[in-house]
Amino acid sequence: MARVFESDSGSGCSNVLSLDLIRESLIRQEDTIVFSLIERAKFPLNSPAFEESRCLDSGSFSSLTEFFVRETEIIQAKVGRYEYPEENPFFLENIPHSVFPTHKYPSALHPKALSVNINKQIWDIYFKELLPLFVKPGDDGNYPSTAASDLACLQALSRRIHYGKFVAEVKFRDAPQDYEPAIRAQDREALMKLLTFEKVEEMVKKRVQKKAETFGQEVKFNSGYGDESKKKYKVDPLLASRIYGEWLIPLTKLVEVEYLLRRLD
Amino acid sequence: MARVFESDSGSGCSNVLSLDLIRESLIRQEDTIVFSLIERAKFPLNSPAFEESRCLDSGSFSSLTEFFVRETEIIQAKVGRYEYPEENPFFLENIPHSVFPTHKYPSALHPKALSVNINKQIWDIYFKELLPLFVKPGDDGNYPSTAASDLACLQALSRRIHYGKFVAEVKFRDAPQDYEPAIRAQDREALMKLLTFEKVEEMVKKRVQKKAETFGQEVKFNSGYGDESKKKYKVDPLLASRIYGEWLIPLTKLVEVEYLLRRLD
Repeated sequence: MARVFESDSGSGCSNVLSLDLIRESLIRQEDTIVFSLIERAKFPLNSPAFEESRCLDSGSFSSLTEFFVRETEIIQAKVGRYEYPEENPFFLENIPHSVFPTHKYPSALHPKALSVNINKQIWDIYFKELLPLFVKPGDDGNYPSTAASDLACLQALSRRIHYGKFVAEVKFRDAPQDYEPAIRAQDREALMKLLTFEKVEEMVKKRVQKKAETFGQEVKFNSGYGDESKKKYKVDPLLASRIYGEWLIPLTKLVEVEYLLRRLD
Repeated sequence: MARVFESDSGSGCSNVLSLDLIRESLIRQEDTIVFSLIERAKFPLNSPAFEESRCLDSGSFSSLTEFFVRETEIIQAKVGRYEYPEENPFFLENIPHSVFPTHKYPSALHPKALSVNINKQIWDIYFKELLPLFVKPGDDGNYPSTAASDLACLQALSRRIHYGKFVAEVKFRDAPQDYEPAIRAQDREALMKLLTFEKVEEMVKKRVQKKAETFGQEVKFNSGYGDESKKKYKVDPLLASRIYGEWLIPLTKLVEVEYLLRRLD
């Protein structure tokens, strides 16, 4: 996936943030998010996987899913995942360094604002509000695969939402004079208004619905795609669009606001 | 995802293996495999990720990807992944037990034949033959996300290939008299002939091609799906079909043969 910034050749300091690459990445992330929702919908809710239970080894209390995400994040950190500003951990307070040489990318983001991380909120919203909407109720006991699928969804949603930092940075660079007054006044509402483009948001929601229709349909060998009205989808396309409209877009703008509030620190 | 066997209620011993559920699962796994190929194709080959390099901590030599898969398998084992006969580890010789209570599913597979695991072969084929075919050459340095994407592909391919154990078991149960002579004679060729249905294989290849066309297309907000001939796909649909025809189907039948050779042990 293309990096969203082009670093100055050699100087290692990036001053070119590409709005086109950001837009391209956000659109491509829609496919990843729709795929991950479809894959998670293979399993029922399986709530015991993310409800607290006793770990047989340590005796400590955590859910299987939390244990799985927490431990996997350590491995992902050890191969350098969190050295990328697009990636934000759910649990790691102090991120282990990578045990393999990694590419040092100049960060296009403001150092103070880089630390914006709303994953705690994303975690709660995902398990309490989103999951019950798009998966069927029930428990098939397959918690290991469910947890792996939840991790894929959580990381795809988190990446899209925290991309708001790049969006905010490029908007600020394009017109600092528009944002500085609201930042100095720490005026969240004013910032939210500056960051809201309803036409664009409607277009994103419609495109996501179309992607959920396209990627979530039953593809048969010899039939066409069949009568639209009787189609069965793996995830309800209207719901995928709603997840974007009522959660992902607002949470992305929340990250943009949090980023901008710190931009002049 | 539905379990492929229905256990006798209460008796804990399964004697009902459902061919319909197996077929349904194999078809649904096509979507998962096509999605995982599409997601991996976001990144270039990034071969340094899976070439041997020195681990900074331990000084040992392993590739970043191998380290990542090996360590992730330990976490997955600890949440019970490998207590499911559909899942086969790439590296774990001795699988750590689960640290959370897990559902004990009666195994529908023959104990001796359960151990068939050709993941070493799958690993080599994936990195040496398949990957260079469906991803673009180059190196963007994003090895952590590449390794996570390779893990998703490897596990999806491995699950489909090792599903051959269930296919073999249900074919054997349906007509033991057809298979017993070849098994007793340990006649691989005879078994391979018994297991080959070219019409079905052609149908699978065509369906996979159609799925790669459907799931890999660019979905735009306001346009239809555009002129078929000028379409751009994230993974070449003919290639996806070829991966099934030249690798996945033959490797699945190899697992079926290996399974049946041990079936009467």
